[in-house]
Amino acid sequence: MSELRKDSITGRWVIVSTDKKKRRSDFYLEPVHVNADPNCPYCEGHEHMTPHEIMAFGRNNGGPDTPGWTLRVVPNQVPVLRVEGSLDRQGEGQFDKMNGIGAHEVVIESPQHDQTLATLSETAVEEALWACRERIHDLKRDMRFRSIVIFKNHGAPAGASVEHSHLQILALPIVPREVRDEVDAARSHYEKKERCVFCDVVRQELTDGRRVVAENADMVAVSPYAPRFPFETWILPRRHEARFEDTPRHEYRSLARMLGDLLRRMHKTLEMPPYNLLIHSAPVKESVGDFYHWHLEIIPKLTKVAGFEWATGLYLNPTTPEEAAQVLRETRL
Amino acid sequence: MSELRKDSITGRWVIVSTDKKKRRSDFYLEPVHVNADPNCPYCEGHEHMTPHEIMAFGRNNGGPDTPGWTLRVVPNQVPVLRVEGSLDRQGEGQFDKMNGIGAHEVVIESPQHDQTLATLSETAVEEALWACRERIHDLKRDMRFRSIVIFKNHGAPAGASVEHSHLQILALPIVPREVRDEVDAARSHYEKKERCVFCDVVRQELTDGRRVVAENADMVAVSPYAPRFPFETWILPRRHEARFEDTPRHEYRSLARMLGDLLRRMHKTLEMPPYNLLIHSAPVKESVGDFYHWHLEIIPKLTKVAGFEWATGLYLNPTTPEEAAQVLRETRL
Repeated sequence: MSELRKDSITGRWVIVSTDKKKRRSDFYLEPVHVNADPNCPYCEGHEHMTPHEIMAFGRNNGGPDTPGWTLRVVPNQVPVLRVEGSLDRQGEGQFDKMNGIGAHEVVIESPQHDQTLATLSETAVEEALWACRERIHDLKRDMRFRSIVIFKNHGAPAGASVEHSHLQILALPIVPREVRDEVDAARSHYEKKERCVFCDVVRQELTDGRRVVAENADMVAVSPYAPRFPFETWILPRRHEARFEDTPRHEYRSLARMLGDLLRRMHKTLEMPPYNLLIHSAPVKESVGDFYHWHLEIIPKLTKVAGFEWATGLYLNPTTPEEAAQVLRETRL
Repeated sequence: MSELRKDSITGRWVIVSTDKKKRRSDFYLEPVHVNADPNCPYCEGHEHMTPHEIMAFGRNNGGPDTPGWTLRVVPNQVPVLRVEGSLDRQGEGQFDKMNGIGAHEVVIESPQHDQTLATLSETAVEEALWACRERIHDLKRDMRFRSIVIFKNHGAPAGASVEHSHLQILALPIVPREVRDEVDAARSHYEKKERCVFCDVVRQELTDGRRVVAENADMVAVSPYAPRFPFETWILPRRHEARFEDTPRHEYRSLARMLGDLLRRMHKTLEMPPYNLLIHSAPVKESVGDFYHWHLEIIPKLTKVAGFEWATGLYLNPTTPEEAAQVLRETRL
């Protein structure tokens, strides 16, 4: 038997199999191994292989684009969008377009080629999150940008083209659909209830307990009630806050601790899965402080998205979130 | 340089690369070969390997579940949703769920294992489309269903688990997100303009010409202005009609002719790509006749969807639709 479940934030339905088998055979397990690469543009000593660096941490002496750093932020060498130029919004008959203006940056989390968010120290993960915060504050000064998205593709099946671990920052002149839908749904909940829907979710999940994967002083990790993908996991701050970049320093540390722990559990249970990591934060210019609530999503890449999903926007998930949460909770590291 | 383009129907933005190179290296070309399979459940003579057939064409004598057919419709052996039971809609705190009630059927297009929509006769393709129509009319009698989706996964990278060519029919107790968004957007356009947005698109594309791939008496094939994927192609009926199943017989023949021709062009140009085919038709119980317009989408699977797309709902397409349309138009068969 299966169940149709509705995400209480976006209203998105998913079909969750409730036959209580883990169905590993449904998974497309393709462990991610980081291979040595003498031509890796993100390794220490190869600073000349990237565009000029935007910022770096850890360098005691030596100028930009030299070794000695612990973290480095550079423009993406194959940017999806470019900073130079004007938006030049225009119509083509009934159609609308604008130039591909934006910023596309890369946070190289470590000088070492084979480190990942699961193997880096808590401090190094915290620094990576902090670097994202710093970049967002800087990018927000550009009045053309309306939203800033942080994401990671870990492993080729998740879309990574460079193996050396990095986060990507994308500043966009539009508010993309997934952000728009979430913000609009949160606004509508607030208009009805005068409460943040994410705060409501955190409260109910902590009371219920079945879908809680981990918690610490500032953060809660849950398998959402209506997950699109097996082992999809969200980390939400306990304290209401619309913007990732407005988080106080100690919460980045709590987030770094939880993120490293969670990824190590996933690596152990799911054999080093490829995954995508996304940070959802409020659009830049909108007053959404009362009702939006930033959060981080981790999506292991274990199933294939097929015609069914494209046709319907309805995801088919072979693993219940209650089962996924239990497996992750009980994983011994 | 790239361009941000907005789909005039759904309002969805995409980033289209406009550097006028075809960038085949960006494609994940994985040609689909149909391998012989002595245990294929959809081959003639293996009728006992599927659940009992729902309908069949072409059998002159012999009962159900015997050889001699040209087309066969059976329940999916691993259904996503099941017909038996009640919906049992209920809440779990702030969350909503219902039982996975629905119908999941398979249209086996040919008794021969190695035929595809690109190699079948025009008549056989027409029969497959007609079988879908017949099944939709029957399924609509079940008052629990609110939308019926037709799709195909061709090749394992597109999600196919059985190689023998087949279409899938899914009757759902909800209106899924992609259908909902399209219907709502078409309604809003109609409220403003008193016109069908799809009719407007067909008219503008025929006048412009750059994105038209093919046309015949009843159907128009276009590369949409803001395609999510390279070589994404839509077939729209010229005549306004909300529901696929209300199409007159001769239009199925026109659709079959265009579909076969288009798939052969894609096979020739893109080396037998895996693809998804989807038919978007109006939700069952809604009065949307004035403003919704059924259509068929073909999405070759040439790129990978990564964190960027999940984070934003914003698709990155390395091929302009103008370029894709030109390539398909100029393909010599």
